[in-house]
Amino acid sequence: MIAPAERDAVLAVLADYGWLIDEGRFDEWLDLFTEDCVYKVVPRENLALGLPGCLMLCENKDMLRDRVTALTEANKYNIHVPRHVIGLPRITRVAADLLAVEAAYTVFQSDQDGEARLFSVGSYLDRVQLAGGVPRLKEKLVIVDSFAIPSLLATPL
Amino acid sequence: MIAPAERDAVLAVLADYGWLIDEGRFDEWLDLFTEDCVYKVVPRENLALGLPGCLMLCENKDMLRDRVTALTEANKYNIHVPRHVIGLPRITRVAADLLAVEAAYTVFQSDQDGEARLFSVGSYLDRVQLAGGVPRLKEKLVIVDSFAIPSLLATPL
Amino acid sequence: MIAPAERDAVLAVLADYGWLIDEGRFDEWLDLFTEDCVYKVVPRENLALGLPGCLMLCENKDMLRDRVTALTEANKYNIHVPRHVIGLPRITRVAADLLAVEAAYTVFQSDQDGEARLFSVGSYLDRVQLAGGVPRLKEKLVIVDSFAIPSLLATPL
Repeated sequence: MIAPAERDAVLAVLADYGWLIDEGRFDEWLDLFTEDCVYKVVPRENLALGLPGCLMLCENKDMLRDRVTALTEANKYNIHVPRHVIGLPRITRVAADLLAVEAAYTVFQSDQDGEARLFSVGSYLDRVQLAGGVPRLKEKLVIVDSFAIPSLLATPL
Repeated sequence: MIAPAERDAVLAVLADYGWLIDEGRFDEWLDLFTEDCVYKVVPRENLALGLPGCLMLCENKDMLRDRVTALTEANKYNIHVPRHVIGLPRITRVAADLLAVEAAYTVFQSDQDGEARLFSVGSYLDRVQLAGGVPRLKEKLVIVDSFAIPSLLATPL
Repeated sequence: MIAPAERDAVLAVLADYGWLIDEGRFDEWLDLFTEDCVYKVVPRENLALGLPGCLMLCENKDMLRDRVTALTEANKYNIHVPRHVIGLPRITRVAADLLAVEAAYTVFQSDQDGEARLFSVGSYLDRVQLAGGVPRLKEKLVIVDSFAIPSLLATPL
């Protein structure tokens, strides 16, 4: 059983995850992860075939910090605004303070002329740690259905 | 009034509904329905005009099982991956252990080249039964706004 | 801390907001707002540059009632069906009975031939009042990322 407060914690961390990327608030976004986090972006095709190739791979929070630093500096020229719409999550318990979370996601991008398009579709396979009352992402696996990325993959999905 | 545990049950059954279709886990998907379930896919136009035509009609769980068997066997050649994004549900009580649920849905499809497109948009009008602590779909009415289906309607919406 | 009942109230008012627009039930939609409500639709570009221009501006509920009257009368010729899909909300407390809510939104439109397209993408910055146990929108700021509106902006976003 998942308690209402646990479900709320999961809904909150997913909402924060998408919102902080879309608003470019990457320092707060980093705070959502544990120090020993794993963050991977994998094309669905590779997952299905058991191939190890990733679009992005960070095996701890320092690698994610590096990524954000690079992004923040390169981002000056990023002319697209992302917008995450994350679906209702499936939640199952892995351990007393660890939940497995599965959710569909979509990312839309708008350009400087205010034209929007679908940018990415796929699913999140997450591990959310609840220790200490603050939910944290211990693992974030982004499975990209739309792996034919139509432009630069700069910001995280 | 809808209790937090009841809302959580509705969020969970909606999330399961979409996820299990997208992952092709149709046996578990069938478990979400009651034996006396009704499952209908109706173009919005027909509903508005009071026309009885459906894109899919199952009047009990055995009809749904047949459908899944056909689908599982034909599915070998299905080359699209669906992805459901279901919006926040409106919940109202019909009886002590029966809730009416209304939600917008979108289904995106990705092909084998990793190209994604919007496949279907509409709404769900559901009846969720709470008896025995396990939420089950007693009725699922899918109203399709985008009834000009751009390809085969194989998997359920 | 946000209590489960408070989070449920926010989820419910967001779901009602989108659903009642999509179903054209504007009288019930008006009931979601406080008398002293503010409703604004702002292109993201204007917000970023500090420009005051709005696509829609209602500074109290009477202005919103006027808007709905105009819409209901003009709507006879509206041949598109909107469908809101609203993402998981971020919720923070502003005062004992006032919550700040941030959420991504998408609106899809289907035409009379059943063809659907992405119509609008952006975010909601809301203030939800909880006084009296019934959640009400005291402020709704719609930030439109896709400000190149591809056709008439008749119905609210």
